[in-house]
Amino acid sequence: MDEICEYCQIAGGYGDILFETPYWIIYLAPSQRYLGTCVVALKRYCKDLSQVEKKEWVDFGVIVQKLEHALEKTFKPTLYNWSCFKNSAFRSIKPNPEIHWHFIPRYQEEVDFEGFKFRDQDFGYIPQPIKREIPLKIQEKLGRAIMKHVTS
Amino acid sequence: MDEICEYCQIAGGYGDILFETPYWIIYLAPSQRYLGTCVVALKRYCKDLSQVEKKEWVDFGVIVQKLEHALEKTFKPTLYNWSCFKNSAFRSIKPNPEIHWHFIPRYQEEVDFEGFKFRDQDFGYIPQPIKREIPLKIQEKLGRAIMKHVTS
Repeated sequence: MDEICEYCQIAGGYGDILFETPYWIIYLAPSQRYLGTCVVALKRYCKDLSQVEKKEWVDFGVIVQKLEHALEKTFKPTLYNWSCFKNSAFRSIKPNPEIHWHFIPRYQEEVDFEGFKFRDQDFGYIPQPIKREIPLKIQEKLGRAIMKHVTS
Repeated sequence: MDEICEYCQIAGGYGDILFETPYWIIYLAPSQRYLGTCVVALKRYCKDLSQVEKKEWVDFGVIVQKLEHALEKTFKPTLYNWSCFKNSAFRSIKPNPEIHWHFIPRYQEEVDFEGFKFRDQDFGYIPQPIKREIPLKIQEKLGRAIMKHVTS
């Protein structure tokens, strides 16, 4: 990924790896406007979701369960947004989109994590591609807090 | 669905049925800001994607192929956005979200269909939940044009 992804908000990567499965890698997204935002990226190169194979869909379904259940136990979000957009890749002259999902927990109530307040200002509406970075130490603690509830 | 869905832009339904599979129903979305926008709704009630079962994911993967391939042959979009958001359901006092995917073809070039011009004003960026209706006759022709390329 050469471009700054709309929701990931980082150039050249998706963030820190949380865990991987046979076909996907799960990252904690660099932008945490919505607490617990993750990226689920396919390990092999595919341009479109139509190229994703049966075994990869089944594996993805398991990841969806793991992430939603882990977040439920960590921060109890109200709902979850999932999207595979790839729009920002096409701002480039030579677009090279990769299959990656944005997993965005959404919150009706404000959540406090390690003294930082997370209020979902867009609750009830589409998530906005606006960057919010948190200090590295808090980001690392966040990753560990989520991982504590990811079942193997 | 009691609320007006963000991308579907209709109260109480997802539009006209294009086809169905064992577990999902595919609709032509009432709003055609992005030509060929469809909704893929799970037949049974689920609040979250984590409740979607393996056989339903596999079936969904086949639908993704069918829709992307059909659109490719009909209008040759540049890319496809997929999302499962359910945000607007939570504007209600008693939210009753249902699993449904938004399939949104995106276009670098303007497309003409039956004398109507479709220019993707947001190309390279997230799709905007702004309604664009087209006349019923054109909507019906659009459904038939897509279905001509949906393989059984």
